[in-house]
Amino acid sequence: MRYMGLLHTYKQYLPVNANTPMLTLQEGNTPLIHAENLSNELDLDIYFKYEGLNPTGSFKDRGMVMAVAKAMEEGSRTIMCASTGNTSAAAAAYAARGGLNCIVLIPNNNIALGKLAQAIIYGAKVIAIEGNFDRALEIVREITAKHPITLVNSVNPFRIEGQKTAAFEVVDQLGKAPDYLAIPVGNAGNITAYWKGFKEYHAAGKALTLPKMIGFEAEGSAAIVRGEPIAEPETVATAIRIGNPATWKGAVAAAQDSGGQINYVTDEQILHAYKTIASREGIFAEPASAASIAGVMKLKKEGHFEKGQTVVCVLTGHGLKDPNIAIKSVKAEPMVVKDSEAAVMDAIQRLQG
Amino acid sequence: MRYMGLLHTYKQYLPVNANTPMLTLQEGNTPLIHAENLSNELDLDIYFKYEGLNPTGSFKDRGMVMAVAKAMEEGSRTIMCASTGNTSAAAAAYAARGGLNCIVLIPNNNIALGKLAQAIIYGAKVIAIEGNFDRALEIVREITAKHPITLVNSVNPFRIEGQKTAAFEVVDQLGKAPDYLAIPVGNAGNITAYWKGFKEYHAAGKALTLPKMIGFEAEGSAAIVRGEPIAEPETVATAIRIGNPATWKGAVAAAQDSGGQINYVTDEQILHAYKTIASREGIFAEPASAASIAGVMKLKKEGHFEKGQTVVCVLTGHGLKDPNIAIKSVKAEPMVVKDSEAAVMDAIQRLQG
Repeated sequence: MRYMGLLHTYKQYLPVNANTPMLTLQEGNTPLIHAENLSNELDLDIYFKYEGLNPTGSFKDRGMVMAVAKAMEEGSRTIMCASTGNTSAAAAAYAARGGLNCIVLIPNNNIALGKLAQAIIYGAKVIAIEGNFDRALEIVREITAKHPITLVNSVNPFRIEGQKTAAFEVVDQLGKAPDYLAIPVGNAGNITAYWKGFKEYHAAGKALTLPKMIGFEAEGSAAIVRGEPIAEPETVATAIRIGNPATWKGAVAAAQDSGGQINYVTDEQILHAYKTIASREGIFAEPASAASIAGVMKLKKEGHFEKGQTVVCVLTGHGLKDPNIAIKSVKAEPMVVKDSEAAVMDAIQRLQG
Repeated sequence: MRYMGLLHTYKQYLPVNANTPMLTLQEGNTPLIHAENLSNELDLDIYFKYEGLNPTGSFKDRGMVMAVAKAMEEGSRTIMCASTGNTSAAAAAYAARGGLNCIVLIPNNNIALGKLAQAIIYGAKVIAIEGNFDRALEIVREITAKHPITLVNSVNPFRIEGQKTAAFEVVDQLGKAPDYLAIPVGNAGNITAYWKGFKEYHAAGKALTLPKMIGFEAEGSAAIVRGEPIAEPETVATAIRIGNPATWKGAVAAAQDSGGQINYVTDEQILHAYKTIASREGIFAEPASAASIAGVMKLKKEGHFEKGQTVVCVLTGHGLKDPNIAIKSVKAEPMVVKDSEAAVMDAIQRLQG
């Protein structure tokens, strides 16, 4: 039996009607992987929701399939966003799939082409403006308000509708809601979407309980924790390097209403978690993703959690999304030895110390 | 209901017994995506088996989970391979997951660290020898023959056992065997594995028919098509740049027994297909993957296929595996304009011509 994608699978919970095209790249249906080693170590029952296995490599596909399907339903022929990363890749992929044009607006300040290559391969047209990112988003809003072009940045409300399906999947896979849902917080749309999803599934009788939502910003861009926007956010976790979250209120509400919290983790804690989940659990996620498990490690040290509680950590994107961080994080040079069995065996013994 | 991975799902068809650990990163269960645009264009019913959505980003996870589980069952504490690419990433991930050591042997000749960073992040130890790749494989064979270290290169027979599950999934998803299975051919283990899988599922009554197996080498490494090993294979599709396929006979048998063929495609045809599936279908696969659909396009031009026949094209790895090819393939510089609505609208109109 073939999985038919999010719009089909969860249509009764989504703004899907007879005129909505059943657009899909078979997004969603991502693994919920039990973290055996970390569960033992932290005396918890930890799972990773591995969103890096969405088609374009990040959770953004969930919201984008909904946003682009609605754009098609409304007769739009072009979508547009300001983005230098995962959003542009997802927008471009679904535009390609649906036969729409995709325009990506970026600031013209040393954007690494590698970050945009994925969107361009999918056929997006990239325009750089002589201005910063905020100005790019402003222009996207102006243009999409006046022309028959659909805005697909996170202010598009269908994005959160699509993203909430990840909460449905967690409940379907686990057979219940977890005690805690740990999630990286950047623009704060995703924690808002998960909370909406858990509440809707709960209301529909699909889950008897609700999780506590625990969101983690990076220290250098912890606007919500500090209580004020950050003019120049800085963190190694580029996907959550956001100084003024678009869905600030949604994140605060999710934390408060669920009895959870918004907290922060340092870059050091993020990189430690990033390497730990790869080398201990075999899961490669982009640095921003690791903020969720880094946060759980931090709270555990501070005495949170009861023994054996179920914690689902959202890993938002695949590690292959940011190969440069991977290269920087590993010891650069392999050991070089003679091409003999003895020399290699000797090297193995030294490496295993 | 949670997907439990390949060893659990297909245990009755695999060398799994009560002592085999149920190792998994939830490999497999990958999308079978209908290619709507290309199907119309080629008058065929084309699907992509998108193996890039395996946990480490390539089909290698299927064979590796089986090989590493059997190594654990046998009490091995260390696995070893000669590899500079997808095999080392898969080996390292499953070793991490299973708590084993992983040693990767490579030639010391300008291997790009990016290709190895994934394996290193998963915790593999990399040793470079003063010799070429063939010599590295030779030493791996010597060492694993004498020491309690398990070889996980493609000569490990459990690799093909795990890989054959992709054929099971194709039948389960499609509800039948396709008319054709199109697949890139490098080391030739994968075409051999699919054919074994289709035959076993057919024998078990799970599919009434068998597909014709059509395998495609890259022109610069088309050893099987030419009928002799190629000393210095060259192609943009690095994952199939192999001059002397390890499973040569298996590939020939699959083609002959199924009434299919082994053919080749040029680098130009590969890159054309690579860009076409991204921009027309929204699917980003590594260049080697595109050899399958490039081959179908080539055979179609030569008059093969009947109208409406079902063709499944295997896309072996995710496009994010080879970001440099993506960057090289796209027009490098975005259009730069003033930061005004009018300037951006003008640019959009020019781009959409």
